[in-house]
Amino acid sequence: MFERAVFPILPTPFRGDESVDLESYARMVDRMVGLDVSGITILGVLGEANRLTDRERTLIIECALEAAGRLPVVVGTSHSGTQAAIELSKTAEDLGAAAIMVTPHQEAVPSEAKVLAHFEAIAGACDLPIVFQDHPGSTGVHLSIELVLRIVDELETVACIKQEAVPSPPRVAALVERMDRRVPILTGLGALYGGFELLAGADGFMTGFAFPEVLQAMVAADADLAWSIYCTYLPLMVFENQPGVAIRKEIFRRRGMIEHATVRRPAPSIAPFANAQLDQVLDRVLGAADLRERLEIN
Amino acid sequence: MFERAVFPILPTPFRGDESVDLESYARMVDRMVGLDVSGITILGVLGEANRLTDRERTLIIECALEAAGRLPVVVGTSHSGTQAAIELSKTAEDLGAAAIMVTPHQEAVPSEAKVLAHFEAIAGACDLPIVFQDHPGSTGVHLSIELVLRIVDELETVACIKQEAVPSPPRVAALVERMDRRVPILTGLGALYGGFELLAGADGFMTGFAFPEVLQAMVAADADLAWSIYCTYLPLMVFENQPGVAIRKEIFRRRGMIEHATVRRPAPSIAPFANAQLDQVLDRVLGAADLRERLEIN
Amino acid sequence: MFERAVFPILPTPFRGDESVDLESYARMVDRMVGLDVSGITILGVLGEANRLTDRERTLIIECALEAAGRLPVVVGTSHSGTQAAIELSKTAEDLGAAAIMVTPHQEAVPSEAKVLAHFEAIAGACDLPIVFQDHPGSTGVHLSIELVLRIVDELETVACIKQEAVPSPPRVAALVERMDRRVPILTGLGALYGGFELLAGADGFMTGFAFPEVLQAMVAADADLAWSIYCTYLPLMVFENQPGVAIRKEIFRRRGMIEHATVRRPAPSIAPFANAQLDQVLDRVLGAADLRERLEIN
Amino acid sequence: MFERAVFPILPTPFRGDESVDLESYARMVDRMVGLDVSGITILGVLGEANRLTDRERTLIIECALEAAGRLPVVVGTSHSGTQAAIELSKTAEDLGAAAIMVTPHQEAVPSEAKVLAHFEAIAGACDLPIVFQDHPGSTGVHLSIELVLRIVDELETVACIKQEAVPSPPRVAALVERMDRRVPILTGLGALYGGFELLAGADGFMTGFAFPEVLQAMVAADADLAWSIYCTYLPLMVFENQPGVAIRKEIFRRRGMIEHATVRRPAPSIAPFANAQLDQVLDRVLGAADLRERLEIN
Repeated sequence: MFERAVFPILPTPFRGDESVDLESYARMVDRMVGLDVSGITILGVLGEANRLTDRERTLIIECALEAAGRLPVVVGTSHSGTQAAIELSKTAEDLGAAAIMVTPHQEAVPSEAKVLAHFEAIAGACDLPIVFQDHPGSTGVHLSIELVLRIVDELETVACIKQEAVPSPPRVAALVERMDRRVPILTGLGALYGGFELLAGADGFMTGFAFPEVLQAMVAADADLAWSIYCTYLPLMVFENQPGVAIRKEIFRRRGMIEHATVRRPAPSIAPFANAQLDQVLDRVLGAADLRERLEIN
Repeated sequence: MFERAVFPILPTPFRGDESVDLESYARMVDRMVGLDVSGITILGVLGEANRLTDRERTLIIECALEAAGRLPVVVGTSHSGTQAAIELSKTAEDLGAAAIMVTPHQEAVPSEAKVLAHFEAIAGACDLPIVFQDHPGSTGVHLSIELVLRIVDELETVACIKQEAVPSPPRVAALVERMDRRVPILTGLGALYGGFELLAGADGFMTGFAFPEVLQAMVAADADLAWSIYCTYLPLMVFENQPGVAIRKEIFRRRGMIEHATVRRPAPSIAPFANAQLDQVLDRVLGAADLRERLEIN
Repeated sequence: MFERAVFPILPTPFRGDESVDLESYARMVDRMVGLDVSGITILGVLGEANRLTDRERTLIIECALEAAGRLPVVVGTSHSGTQAAIELSKTAEDLGAAAIMVTPHQEAVPSEAKVLAHFEAIAGACDLPIVFQDHPGSTGVHLSIELVLRIVDELETVACIKQEAVPSPPRVAALVERMDRRVPILTGLGALYGGFELLAGADGFMTGFAFPEVLQAMVAADADLAWSIYCTYLPLMVFENQPGVAIRKEIFRRRGMIEHATVRRPAPSIAPFANAQLDQVLDRVLGAADLRERLEIN
Repeated sequence: MFERAVFPILPTPFRGDESVDLESYARMVDRMVGLDVSGITILGVLGEANRLTDRERTLIIECALEAAGRLPVVVGTSHSGTQAAIELSKTAEDLGAAAIMVTPHQEAVPSEAKVLAHFEAIAGACDLPIVFQDHPGSTGVHLSIELVLRIVDELETVACIKQEAVPSPPRVAALVERMDRRVPILTGLGALYGGFELLAGADGFMTGFAFPEVLQAMVAADADLAWSIYCTYLPLMVFENQPGVAIRKEIFRRRGMIEHATVRRPAPSIAPFANAQLDQVLDRVLGAADLRERLEIN
């Protein structure tokens, strides 16, 4: 499922009053099906999972699965408690998810043994393939590469590493070289280092960059073409990669995938200045292209 | 409700398999009623609220309210998203809670304006009295005293400050002196600085120290007696105050309030060494007292 | 001094045994003079200032000043103690520096009043112009824009803002709009967001990107040309911007400016994998250009 | 040197203008000689080492060594750079220190291998005995117990562990049980957990509690008496243990050891409220005892 794959991470659309907009959700997923992505990932950081109630989570999973049809849906089920992470994972399994995505939990005193135990417990209770997300930028948890290797080795349902520890290219290369059981490595961080990660041996992307067709083209291309595509879209990746999810949601809105770009408080929705700069960068990078259509990459 | 008050913060009892033990919960609340405390606070840090699903939260609130009868129940409803904090608060209100306890949310970039907006939104959507919990040790959010004063001033449903920013005694004194609208200040931190906080003008306690009768006696006493009680039990407070909730849960178990001292993973349950030291400190501080009964304080 | 300026931030060259290599230092400064930069900044984060003794600092300042001749030299004098920051600043002043660069200190409990007092004390004791460096990524200190404005307003020797709080473009725009006394805003972060920062009104750069001639060309160009230059070199900026100073030091070495790319422990020198990727990115972005010469930008 | 030892950690006295007060320093050390402590430790956190210039450090070391005579002086030489830590350690060695005290450095990405390498480099360059300080509260570095054991095992000049990772009593017990080469374990944290640490097998104290004679009495006593002394002075330990060094410096001043209680900015000197509470706690705990004399412990 994850070989040479592009799994866009989807935002959670809200209406102006911050209520979940399932209609937009279904439309956005439908558009992803049309882009022929490898699958979709929902309820990650970009999905504002940490600002949702459990009831909303369930509605969103159901909506996404129905709209996705046969397209694999990966569901983020990270939680600060092991038992609750298991519950969320089982719910995802019961509803029909294709896989779960899980980060290490943060504890006051870091402990690699406890990170391993957390994943063991989840893998022992839920049969779904696990995307192991290593993203210290959001979790605050720094893992040794030895621990990542051990988790892949000991837990056979770990089916993919989402590698987002920086510097990411050498880490991708080290994982590729040292993994006994080779699982696909997808990278994230909005594809900011995507050109270098592919050169280092990454298999593809699982990230929130709002133009997955660009990432698909990079994955399908040879090294020279992939580099050229990367360079073309890099200014957009850099711009999108500013902190927060507001810019990405606004691009999803401009692409006609969601109705509102509302971000849930306490995080801010896009400010007028960033919106104006977005006009500029889209104009300079994409020219007259219709955002609502699949971009022509060449 | 919060004047000269002692509100114990309750742990969430789990069975050996980490499932919620509502039978123990009801018994524990019943024992609190018997201790004649001012009220109870549930689903705080000691309650491992961050390791529960929303469904479990609701079951726990219902159980606590039923067992508490006319005793006021304060429900922790902190959440990283404003909208979800509102949802949790409304659920607490619908179920019959007497008040909610809320901390500031943590954002990547601290902003006092956003902390204020968060509380404004909650106060605007839920009519319950609010216990404003200022506990940088668990939230990572450091507030200026000016902001705390402003929140009390602008939000009239803020009914109590749970003051746990250190050093706490001078902060209590400054709040007492500078509040325009005077609301009760309860302190926490396991009563570690309790003797000094009372001298500084604190009204009472809202904390997880497993012997609320000690805190009640301190609040009822004159300055000299309160100091004497504080000194007597301070070694126990210091011991309990070690990181984690394991020691407190074990004391609740020994007091016959809950069946198991299980802590949910990834946090550890009490280790044999700490258990053995607990034997010693209980023996040295409480002597032959029957833990299952109300302590005689004098 | 700081209008439409480019001030490269210089690394501190070490020999293989980690001793300070003053010969390389002088050569590097001389090369900067030849590039006709506006000035140089020494003893910043890239300069590994936090891994030097005071004696080494003094030797480096003397060496840089002598090699710089009439070129202005800005000296980083940040310190966790106010008094020591004053001492370092006075030493820089006595030795002939043109300005000092200072960050807020980090305290256990953040306090904007204390940040202001820190800068007041330094400005009161040292007559040099101050570059106020706002870089939460390295300091852990997040400042409200109101505080930055107040510092500029109240301290007349603050002569420049080095704006490195993200997202940086909107912050640059807000500063430009709201400053009463207008001081130049230079940006950093390896020029990662440089194209957007210039569009937002930034005056130039004070950063460690190893090709200052690229930044000079951007500052001198009109908006369209600046954007085009930015896009051309962005892959290199992204690559250099990976954590640590190892890649930059290696580029300085390849440019013939310093003898060794050694980084002081505990930080790592460049690893073989990153070195190999650096070959690739230099080749793809710069082609056959001679790194030892000034790049031709067009 | 460290068996059953009490090494007070000394503050650095400043005059009202924040200049180093060496006269007070010498008097304070002389008083420590009179208290017959096992040795003294200078330039730790309480010594505000992070707010001193290197020149001041040297003056302080010379002053302390001269005043200490034959009393062993341990010098804190922690630094964010390995090379600079070596320089500081060699300076301490050259001046005649008895040992050095070193913490792990903090890096953006924690790495146990790098912590080990840091200590190896220092041990390889300086022949003095090393006090390995494990204090995550000030360093932000959390070490596995396995790493601490390995450092003791591999570096034979490590002569003492200053154990300040919480919860400290079980950690002391685990170290005692698992060390192959047994080195003394001294604890700190102002002796807050001192009663429990001694029961767990700690050898003594290296900490800033302003009444070292209390700690000496605890170390010399049997378990029952040590516990009784601990309980008597615990309210004072708790009070002193509030964040910052201001309270301790004020007690040193009241004891006639130093002239001023000035703390270097940006940290605050003692505030009037804390000073008034200090009056109260000293009165309640020590009664009419003359602070300027050695306390009678019984």
